[in-house]
Amino acid sequence: MIKRSEVRKAQARAAELLENVGIRLTDEERENIEVAELGLGELERTGLELVVYVNTDRYCAKELILFPRQTCPEHLHPPVGSDPGKMETFRCRWGQVWLYVEGDPTPAIKAHVPAGSEPYYTVFHEIELNPGDQYTIPPNTLHWFQSGDEGAIVSEFSSTSRDEFDIFTDPRIERLPQIVED
Amino acid sequence: MIKRSEVRKAQARAAELLENVGIRLTDEERENIEVAELGLGELERTGLELVVYVNTDRYCAKELILFPRQTCPEHLHPPVGSDPGKMETFRCRWGQVWLYVEGDPTPAIKAHVPAGSEPYYTVFHEIELNPGDQYTIPPNTLHWFQSGDEGAIVSEFSSTSRDEFDIFTDPRIERLPQIVED
Repeated sequence: MIKRSEVRKAQARAAELLENVGIRLTDEERENIEVAELGLGELERTGLELVVYVNTDRYCAKELILFPRQTCPEHLHPPVGSDPGKMETFRCRWGQVWLYVEGDPTPAIKAHVPAGSEPYYTVFHEIELNPGDQYTIPPNTLHWFQSGDEGAIVSEFSSTSRDEFDIFTDPRIERLPQIVED
Repeated sequence: MIKRSEVRKAQARAAELLENVGIRLTDEERENIEVAELGLGELERTGLELVVYVNTDRYCAKELILFPRQTCPEHLHPPVGSDPGKMETFRCRWGQVWLYVEGDPTPAIKAHVPAGSEPYYTVFHEIELNPGDQYTIPPNTLHWFQSGDEGAIVSEFSSTSRDEFDIFTDPRIERLPQIVED
């Protein structure tokens, strides 16, 4: 649950980060920046901000904006009907992001697992993305990511997004936000 | 046909335009910028430069770089097997671009049809894209585009790219380049 005033504040902050790196939005896009609070009540630490440029039945493109050390928690994109599950390519545009996927755990990872949520982080194969770096995550594969101390902007190129089917490891998480007017 | 030295020059110029707007490439990407000379021997006027970020059997993402008033000539993406044809979304990042698609012809279009190639431009419904603007082109639809006086950078989000199947209105055009070492 998140208050409308907090949504507006996060939208303005995300818009400013995009503007600082020269990524232009229309007024309508700016007003519709998605603030994924995810239901834990700790947006600064767990959540992310998104601009969806296009989402058709064939492909999708988004800009992901992460505040400093903000974490998108562990989840996967399962098969849905004839779709084998969302496949996505993350390309770092600004800042730094650590992405964790299934595979050999990296010793001494650079991200900080959000305190109190340790049981819900289970994959630790680290991929560091700096501006210009990219990585493609196969469908139906657990992953999570956290930005560095400055935050990050990441372009996501993918097959069709069906966020409502995402499966999070943490059962407390709600992908679709509940906004309270204030 | 284009000389290797001309390819290198166009790659360096495209890389500089990207760098100027803060779009970062890896060294490998910079060396592999695609220079689509298209066989008319007039790259400055007819052609474009591309960085292919990812092209899978599900989606594709590219950066298109256009020099001032450079034109990507009229073509369409036909059905290929079970694929209904490439669908693509152009998002202007920098500069200005005029896109022409099928539909009511716009009177007094802003682009200059390349002299000597007039018979091969047949659609004139104009869409002007400034930074932050985007437009989605359906499959199997004729389109062409030209940048403004400064040039342009356009992100392309699309279904799978199969450039070798593109159909150009101008039969003189060769989509895949012939590079001559010099």
